[in-house]
Amino acid sequence: MGWMQDETGLESRAANHVALTPLSHLARAAQVFPRREALVDRDIRLSYADYHAAASRLAGGLVAEGVASGDVVATILPNVAAQAIAHFGVPACGAVLNTINTRLDADTVSYILSHGGARIVLVDSQFLQMCEDAVGRIDDKAPMIVEVPDPAAGFPASGRHPTWDDLLAKGSPDFQWVMPQDEWESLALNYTSGTTGRPKGVVYHHRGAYLMTMGTVISWRMVLYPRHLTIVPLFHCNGWNHTWMMPVLGGCTICCRDISAAAIYNAIADERVTHFGGAPIVLNSLVNAPDEERREFDHTVEVFTAGAPPAPATLAGMEKIGFNVTHVYGLTETYGHVTECLWDSAWDDAPSDEIAARKARQGVAMPMMEPIAVLDDQDSQVPLDGKTQGEIAIRGNCVMKGYYRDPDATAEAFAGGWFHSGDIAVQHPDGYIQIADRAKDIIISGGENISSVEVEGCLMGHPAVSLCAVVAKPDDKWGEVPCAFVELKKGATGDEADLIGYVRERLAGFKTPKKVVFQELPKTSTGKIQKYELRDVAKTL
Amino acid sequence: MGWMQDETGLESRAANHVALTPLSHLARAAQVFPRREALVDRDIRLSYADYHAAASRLAGGLVAEGVASGDVVATILPNVAAQAIAHFGVPACGAVLNTINTRLDADTVSYILSHGGARIVLVDSQFLQMCEDAVGRIDDKAPMIVEVPDPAAGFPASGRHPTWDDLLAKGSPDFQWVMPQDEWESLALNYTSGTTGRPKGVVYHHRGAYLMTMGTVISWRMVLYPRHLTIVPLFHCNGWNHTWMMPVLGGCTICCRDISAAAIYNAIADERVTHFGGAPIVLNSLVNAPDEERREFDHTVEVFTAGAPPAPATLAGMEKIGFNVTHVYGLTETYGHVTECLWDSAWDDAPSDEIAARKARQGVAMPMMEPIAVLDDQDSQVPLDGKTQGEIAIRGNCVMKGYYRDPDATAEAFAGGWFHSGDIAVQHPDGYIQIADRAKDIIISGGENISSVEVEGCLMGHPAVSLCAVVAKPDDKWGEVPCAFVELKKGATGDEADLIGYVRERLAGFKTPKKVVFQELPKTSTGKIQKYELRDVAKTL
Repeated sequence: MGWMQDETGLESRAANHVALTPLSHLARAAQVFPRREALVDRDIRLSYADYHAAASRLAGGLVAEGVASGDVVATILPNVAAQAIAHFGVPACGAVLNTINTRLDADTVSYILSHGGARIVLVDSQFLQMCEDAVGRIDDKAPMIVEVPDPAAGFPASGRHPTWDDLLAKGSPDFQWVMPQDEWESLALNYTSGTTGRPKGVVYHHRGAYLMTMGTVISWRMVLYPRHLTIVPLFHCNGWNHTWMMPVLGGCTICCRDISAAAIYNAIADERVTHFGGAPIVLNSLVNAPDEERREFDHTVEVFTAGAPPAPATLAGMEKIGFNVTHVYGLTETYGHVTECLWDSAWDDAPSDEIAARKARQGVAMPMMEPIAVLDDQDSQVPLDGKTQGEIAIRGNCVMKGYYRDPDATAEAFAGGWFHSGDIAVQHPDGYIQIADRAKDIIISGGENISSVEVEGCLMGHPAVSLCAVVAKPDDKWGEVPCAFVELKKGATGDEADLIGYVRERLAGFKTPKKVVFQELPKTSTGKIQKYELRDVAKTL
Repeated sequence: MGWMQDETGLESRAANHVALTPLSHLARAAQVFPRREALVDRDIRLSYADYHAAASRLAGGLVAEGVASGDVVATILPNVAAQAIAHFGVPACGAVLNTINTRLDADTVSYILSHGGARIVLVDSQFLQMCEDAVGRIDDKAPMIVEVPDPAAGFPASGRHPTWDDLLAKGSPDFQWVMPQDEWESLALNYTSGTTGRPKGVVYHHRGAYLMTMGTVISWRMVLYPRHLTIVPLFHCNGWNHTWMMPVLGGCTICCRDISAAAIYNAIADERVTHFGGAPIVLNSLVNAPDEERREFDHTVEVFTAGAPPAPATLAGMEKIGFNVTHVYGLTETYGHVTECLWDSAWDDAPSDEIAARKARQGVAMPMMEPIAVLDDQDSQVPLDGKTQGEIAIRGNCVMKGYYRDPDATAEAFAGGWFHSGDIAVQHPDGYIQIADRAKDIIISGGENISSVEVEGCLMGHPAVSLCAVVAKPDDKWGEVPCAFVELKKGATGDEADLIGYVRERLAGFKTPKKVVFQELPKTSTGKIQKYELRDVAKTL
């Protein structure tokens, strides 16, 4: 405790204490990089002066529509310019940004709008009908709909609601931003896509988002003026806070409305993209893209991947074609990534399969976080032996304030002074963590724990496998046995016995899938495979 | 103000709020980069594990000697390993680090030790006699002297005091660090080298030093694993906080006990230095170094320069020999640099003299700061016209807590919600500030203000001039006239008429020095020219 004997006159004041907020990044960028390209969305190219002016107009328009400090403004938008602008414009009037997953059903969206108490919802015309349905289910205090049309994408304005342009016309580029006075004020509200029960509303504070941006610069080895492609949906942990980060670097945010291997390759070649984040499934699509969708590029693209442990085969494939992949890990509750698989040059000369195995670890705490722990049932650190499993526990400034209007769930998540992730991991002697599995994804066969991740990683090494998921299938004798669902590469044919034999050669017998099903896998909008659906299928096999 | 309608359960707690402190950087580095080279001082080469262990031993040793949280521990050390270790080890026991300028006289040091209330002073054997003299003048509560011998530099232990090794032997590498609970706690106490009156004790908080490190990474375009040479004395604004920054990047701090062009060239060539900071006088010595002191190197070295506006000729010379110089500006009260002359690529094609003139500007706020203002007498922003002069006013998280035990001076410095720098500047239409002069350095001749900086910049362009300073000389007719003091390059001869003619061709007549004196210039330890001494000389001419 560094309080000196006499601290008279040393208290904080306006000159030496300013609330941390990512809003400050855009405010500064508009002053120091006014003419630099800031935001690109197809034909739209905004400089930092333009970007700041658009955010100011949005903030002013919201105020004109009655939005007050602390009110919630929701969006149902793909990764288009309006979504990026909303990330600054909504908090710039003191409001809280509630980005909603565009793939949700009307019933769930209705719940979110109602629970969060959104005053206004900005919705892309593609999702208007669903949104109207959702809003129609709210009895009182239904939010006002503002439509964001995208005629170029085939979604013109319906004519039934005021539009984005109408809203911005009510604001002014000179609108005076409402900056937080306390960095603990709420910035964003993100509902987790729970697989059971109603989604929970994760609340972010300004301080956490600011520190996430500063730490990410270091971990991602970013220097001034990167060009970032938004692949991670901005409705998912606010795109890991990358849109808030770009202005501090004078970089450019390049929007990607519809995500495909071709769109990513085109953006890399045409827009000189230097960085993007994406789930392993996105990386996989790049590795397996047909020749006609690929484009040449001569720079290394830095990729953050998270959402599931990337298979060694995916990682190795990415390196070959010009990408440097860093595996990161986090949750909606932690603003996105809070660990990184920091590369140790001592591993440079390892065999390629060991390199890939190392890269599949979730790694160590990012610079802005406290050390990550793996705890046993009594909240004690497990041995760092790479074997003993425990729950990943997280502490630091990039952990949510809590769940909105759910103090019980908040208290439970924060029990013992840690945020409990629900992810099961081991910790290696060097402190690197490695996820064994989500607690609910572990398969218990004859009393032995089987990590579905381990079996999946093995299957992904088979040349015919494009994507796979392994879940528990009820079994009279063993309780549960592993069951594999597989998407094949183009032109490959499925051979159950071959795949089972492939795993048997590489893993312990009890870890070998007893059944292999060839089908397209159900996925969330962020590329996570929906295992609970597959578990239901497995029960019927 | 983003307070939501219902903030129940959303308060900060152990899991989601941790006090910001640069101590966290070394704690993390010891975990994630344990084997990387961290600290080099001639034959000493410490890994991050070693560096952390040494800081822990120091912290434990200080506690064993009775140092408690909030106590002051002083150092009188050159840029050696012990000084870097003290930057972590002293605050790691909750104490406040008071680095004292090694060139001060015993009377001033006595005042500082007494005013700051240091419990222990760590002193290099080179400065022991002065320190003993200083301590001897303190009647009660004199600090304990711990001697840091440096036999390799010719300064063996005196045998009269416990040594650095004795102190560390009392600590343990497992000492549990005392981390700040509140980021506003005091971290460091830096006495400004005032030219009149007693020095004032500038108090730093942990929050400011942490944010300085994060912002500097961006401004200095640093990626992981830089190699930083400590040229700026660590007793000067804690070396602009660079030693606290390096662990977050896994970089290496390379100590430089005695600063010379040869030592810098050797460190660049032998230790592969990538970054260093230094006053323009240091840059000048590199540009003018004789061939036998130069070394070849094939990488670009990034240089921050501050302390005085670098002359265009110095900047142009540095670029030619492989350095990329960024001009930064700040004060002891702002932890070092808080503005940077951020380069705009639109200027790339300007003529070289214009490029140098641009680079000589102090620029814009660094990423962690609020915009810098230039204020008139009524604390109103002056027009951004590049002409109207005002005082540089600074606001942001890298501004000191205040002056220790001097609430009146603190209140005065912070009047109106700004830190008032005392530096006179203009602000250009693009927001870049440019210092006209220190208020006290301006020459008023016949009612016209003359910027000594402008005349100096002109003189530095003359091929015979190595270094110069222009001050006011009392004049019966004009009140004051400019008087130039000049250090010549090796082999050059002084010609007063030639220099006066050179300036007359380039500047308005009233700005031309009426007198030129050829002599070595008096400098502070940080390379600032001591103009008050020259002013005294000028009065006698």
